[in-house]
Formats: sequence, structure tokens, C-alpha cells
Amino acid sequence: MGANELLAELAGIGSTPSGGYSRLAWDPATMQLREWFVGQASALGLEVTEDGNGNQVAWWGHGPDALLVGSHLDSVPDGGPLDGPLGVTSALAAVGQLKAEGWQPTRPIAVANFTDEEGARFGVACLGSRLATGAIATDHALGLKDAAGDTLAEVMAARGRDPRRAGPSAWLADVKYYVELHVEQGRWLAPHHAPVGVASAIWPHGRWRLDFCGQGNHAGATAMVDRYDPMLTYAATVLAARELALDSGHRATIGRVQVEPGSTNSIPSRVTAWLDARAESGPGLENLVAGLIERAQVAARDDGTTVEVRAESITGAVDFDPELRHRLAALLDAPVLPTGAGHDAGILAAKLPTAMLFVRNPTGISHAPQESASTDDIDAGVDALVRVVRELA
Amino acid sequence: MGANELLAELAGIGSTPSGGYSRLAWDPATMQLREWFVGQASALGLEVTEDGNGNQVAWWGHGPDALLVGSHLDSVPDGGPLDGPLGVTSALAAVGQLKAEGWQPTRPIAVANFTDEEGARFGVACLGSRLATGAIATDHALGLKDAAGDTLAEVMAARGRDPRRAGPSAWLADVKYYVELHVEQGRWLAPHHAPVGVASAIWPHGRWRLDFCGQGNHAGATAMVDRYDPMLTYAATVLAARELALDSGHRATIGRVQVEPGSTNSIPSRVTAWLDARAESGPGLENLVAGLIERAQVAARDDGTTVEVRAESITGAVDFDPELRHRLAALLDAPVLPTGAGHDAGILAAKLPTAMLFVRNPTGISHAPQESASTDDIDAGVDALVRVVRELA
Repeated sequence: MGANELLAELAGIGSTPSGGYSRLAWDPATMQLREWFVGQASALGLEVTEDGNGNQVAWWGHGPDALLVGSHLDSVPDGGPLDGPLGVTSALAAVGQLKAEGWQPTRPIAVANFTDEEGARFGVACLGSRLATGAIATDHALGLKDAAGDTLAEVMAARGRDPRRAGPSAWLADVKYYVELHVEQGRWLAPHHAPVGVASAIWPHGRWRLDFCGQGNHAGATAMVDRYDPMLTYAATVLAARELALDSGHRATIGRVQVEPGSTNSIPSRVTAWLDARAESGPGLENLVAGLIERAQVAARDDGTTVEVRAESITGAVDFDPELRHRLAALLDAPVLPTGAGHDAGILAAKLPTAMLFVRNPTGISHAPQESASTDDIDAGVDALVRVVRELA
Repeated sequence: MGANELLAELAGIGSTPSGGYSRLAWDPATMQLREWFVGQASALGLEVTEDGNGNQVAWWGHGPDALLVGSHLDSVPDGGPLDGPLGVTSALAAVGQLKAEGWQPTRPIAVANFTDEEGARFGVACLGSRLATGAIATDHALGLKDAAGDTLAEVMAARGRDPRRAGPSAWLADVKYYVELHVEQGRWLAPHHAPVGVASAIWPHGRWRLDFCGQGNHAGATAMVDRYDPMLTYAATVLAARELALDSGHRATIGRVQVEPGSTNSIPSRVTAWLDARAESGPGLENLVAGLIERAQVAARDDGTTVEVRAESITGAVDFDPELRHRLAALLDAPVLPTGAGHDAGILAAKLPTAMLFVRNPTGISHAPQESASTDDIDAGVDALVRVVRELA
């Protein structure tokens, strides 16, 4: 089957009323996607394994110096259909096509479904690949909690996985290259009239938790001048984030916020927000976040509130292997572009030569139901991946 | 028992880790408080009834022209111990003291525990008294949903109440006066060195739902200039609310907000917020809200987002019965003060002569765990209520 047909099989899994998808790590939808992956890979004659972190890897052949292709099947809440099922389905479609042609690789080929790439459940993105590569301490990861207060260890155990098996994965030692195909995020390929591009780098990025505290009080009986309202400090910080990111050409987003007590007729006592910040360089990111913290503190002083900031995860710049990306760009005659989004490929790049292919996204919209690519471009992505596999394996 | 002792009995019911209380209509805590009310009132020899809306009324005698005293036992999430249990416990303590003295009233006396005064569960404040007086359409009220998506009708049925009995209450026809004692909200009595005051009026107030819509997208891959982020419009609206309320001497609060999809690495597609606004006069309130809507719309235009505003409840100004309040202020030699907070007394005032007594709140803090009154002032409140009952009954 082609990638379009494989994607169509997933259309009913984890779908939301808005037309998008919510597929969070270890939830019923991703459990169903795991079974689907096993079935598809087995039908292609691949041997499916799962490491202690929940990463699924389907093998065509065994031994060292394998070529790994794939992506992930989880999504953000109410995300789109393609980030990252496009990479997994394209990898399965490419392997299927090569097998049907009777082509024989010179090295093992493996297809990966990395677990919890989005970090939407436990707050740390690329959790499966971070655990597999040792980029995150295993105990720390296992202790991360979801919104219901359950730890990763508890959630894995409830799904029949032994958390004591989590941690750096032996199978990665057999991998020589990783190539991840992904739907484009942002809109760069459309104006450059290219269906497929090759990634140059991933911007450094991170997540910070901001706790704004004030004095809870009655919304009707408390004069404006007698308030210590952390919602005001929060609002000033949101606007400062836009201003600083615009000025520097970087990116800052606050897309998640919690209010205590969260009652219409109560002045909040606490507002907790999560900042997602990205910049072209590490120092750029540091300046952006430091500037924002300063602005938040000034607003807190004015409002009689306090703000505490804690980094939850910071990922440095990733420059994909220059030799590999030049080789693939030349092979495919494809343009080279950077990305502001993190990927499992960015985690694996610290360990082995890694490359990414992007498939044109006509609107640039991602992490939303409107995320899309044309069926022709999806086929072009599979064609490109087939050529890459022939070239590297 | 005195009111301080009665309040101490409630200390363990619905308490929160912060030292406050969460007692939402029909939740396990308020169910326990209902039973406690039945027990206390029965021990005083009162006959406890419950109307079709869940309002509990304990009768000392029967017949027309009764004097009603009381308040409510529910709270906002993480609220304080006194709003409104102070009114219910003071009423029970006053009746207990009068009975112990062998005093005989010339008219029936009733003690009320109105249900869902805070509106923290279904979004409409004073739901019990609004239903009892017909101030809200019964079908509309029964269809209101809580955060779990359950309607009031479903929640009442789950507690063994027949929702078909909800609506205007016959027992109110037997009530001549209502006097509600309440902890002060705001800080007016302390600087005036008075333990107890009498209410003049309740400011007009209301709740509005604001839906800010934009385009969900990827937080890392979307340039700042390509965004339609409703969180920015929301933040501008929060700050505009403070500015407009400060300028006009009125009050505006946003203490509740929901974000979709609510993911750290996603630009929101929708931010929903609830505005609580209060002003000295009806036109003042209209101007405040109209001004805020205009500011929100300007911000939305700038941000490429939209904003929709819908009034959820609006309560006009309440001037408490002038004759009754002058009589009580003279009787108690107590100062007269207005309030920005809504109360069941404000709803009943449209039907019958109604008055309120406030007990000094040294910090003014309410709707928060720090809400307090001294034990002496609580005793002074009961003394005042005893004198009022003697005067009116």
C-alpha cells in the first residue's frame, strides 16, 4: 500500500470532533496505533521488536550498520493527521515498494515508531528517543507525571510494560544512519515550488514553566487598587513574549495555562503557564528567555505578585550531518531548509549521522486539524524515501 | 452552641490542602453539609423542609408572615470558611439562644440554607434563590452544565431529587422579611471600627463569556508574523479590563480561562474566558462592558483573531428595603455600607423586604482561604442577629 492508503487506515483512530487527532502516549488511540504498526510491518515480513521505552522497531534483516527510517504515531491534543504518521506510513510504503520490486538491501533496514515524540502527556518532547539514546536520565523520565498525576512508570506498568527495562537501548548500536521523513511545519517549500526538501538544522528550543502567584480574593468586593492579581502579570508576560520574539526574529508561545482557583467570581491566587521558546542560536534563545523573565519580574513588581520560572527541558541546536544532507539533497535535487520544530531525528543526530526529509505543507499549518499535504506530494515523499533507501542501503 | 462552635464542626468538610474549602453544589462536601444542617436544626426543634430546588428551610412555627434568616453553605473552589456558613451558623446560634431564653416569637421564624449561591458549579450565581423566586427560567436552569458536562437536572437526579419539582417555591409566599448575615467582603468596617454593619445596596453585576478564536499551529515552526494567536488577544483584553475598571472606579476580573488545545508546543486555536464585572450603577456596568468589548475587538483585528461575547447572567442594582435597613441600623447603631458582591438576599429583595448584616473582615479577603473574622466579631454578629429577630418577630 502507498502512504496515502496507509494514512486512510488511521483516519478513525483518536479522531476529535474538530476533525483533528488526539493521540497521546500510551492512551487507547496510541495503543491501537501500536497494534496497527505491528500488523502492517508483519505483513511486509518485517520482525517487530519493542524496546524497554516503548519504541517499536520493525527489522528487514539483522546485524550492524542498519539504515533506520521512520517517525512517530502520537500527536499533540487536537493535532493534524500527518505529524508524524506521514513518516511512519511513508517508511512502510517505501519498504513495501522495494520488497515488491525484489530489491535486496546490502545492509539491514529498520522502520521505527518512536514513542511520545510530542511530549504532550509528560511534558518532555521526544521522550522515547531521549530514553533510547540516554539523553534523559531514566529515573527522571520515569518520574514525570501526566495531567492525571500518574508517572510514566505507572502508566507503562498499567500497559503491561516493565519500567525497569526503560533506559538506553542496545538496538541503537546497530544503526548507522537515521532518516526521518516528516510533513513540513511552516511554509517554505510551497513558495520554493518543491514537493520535498532536506533539513539543514533544528533550532535550539525549550520549555519553561512560569508560576505567577498573588492573593486570591473576591472578584466583586475587592477594589482594583487592593488587588494582587497574578492574571494581570501573566497577561503582561504573554504580550512581552510576542514583542521580544518579534524583535529578535525568534519564537515564543504560551499555549497552556492553568488558573487557581479558576472561578469566575474569584481573583486568582495562582496562574501557571508554559512557555515554548525557540531561536536560531543557543545565545539567541538564552537572551530571549532572559529578557522575558526580566519583563515578567517587572510586571510582577508592579502588580504586587511574584513569578517563578523553571526550565523543564532545553534542547541545543542540531546541525544535521553535513555530508549526509549534501548527499541526499544532490540525490533528490531537493532544496535545503532549517526547521523550528524538534524531532526524534534531532535527538538521534547526537549519536549517529541523521537526516530529515520534509514533504510540502501548502498552508504551513501543523499541530492543528488543518495540517495537510497533497496526495501527489505524499507520493513524492515516498518516492524520495525509496531513492534514499536505495542510495544508503 | 455559638456560631464559633458550629463553624468548628464544619472545619473538616470539603477542606483543601491550602487551608481553604471547596464545597460545590451537590458535591460530596455539600451533601455532608446538608445532613449536618438537618441534624443541627432538628436538635433545635425546627422542622426541616427541602424545596424542589434543593433549598433547605428549617421552621420554628408555621403560617404566613414569617421572618427568614440564613445564608448558604456552598463555597467557591478553594474559598474561605465564612462565605456563607457564617450566616447559616449565626442564624442557628441565634435561634438556639432565643429558644434557650424561652423567648416566644409572634410570627414564624425560618432558617435557610440556599443551594448553589456561588454559581461555581453551573456558572449562574444564586441558582437556588433564583429558581425559588422565578428569577431564572426553570428549564434554562435545569439545562445548565457543570465542568463535567452534566446538567443540573442530571446532577439533581443523581442525588435522588426529582428535577420536575424544580422552579418557583410556594413556601416563599409565607415569608415577610429576609435577613442575611454575611462575612464582610472588602474592607470597610475595620477602618470604621465597627464589628457589624448593615447593607445599603448591591452593585449591579454580571458574568460574560468571551471566546477568542484564531488558528491553531505549531509553536516552533510558525513565524511570529504568520500567527493568529488568540492568547495574545486574550492577554490584551485582560489588561484592558484592569485599565477600564481602574479608570471608572468599577471592577472587572478574569479568573477563569480555558485554552484549546492547551498544549505547550501548540499555538492555541481558542481561548475562552469568563469576565466578572461590577459597577455602582447599571449604566456604569454597561459602559464598562461595552468599552471592554470594543477593546477586545480592536485587539482581535490587530491579531487576526475573532472575539465573541455572550452575557451569561446580569443582575441589576439591588437597593435593600430602605425602611427595613434604617430600622436595623438604628436598632444596632451600626453603619450602613454598599457591597460589590451578590447574595441570595439580592435575589429575594425583588420579592420582599430584605436586609443584610455584615460582620467585620479584618483583611477584606474573601473567596480565598485567608478569609477570616475574629471570634469576638462572630459573637457580635450573632448578638446583632438575636436583636434583629426579637425586633422583627
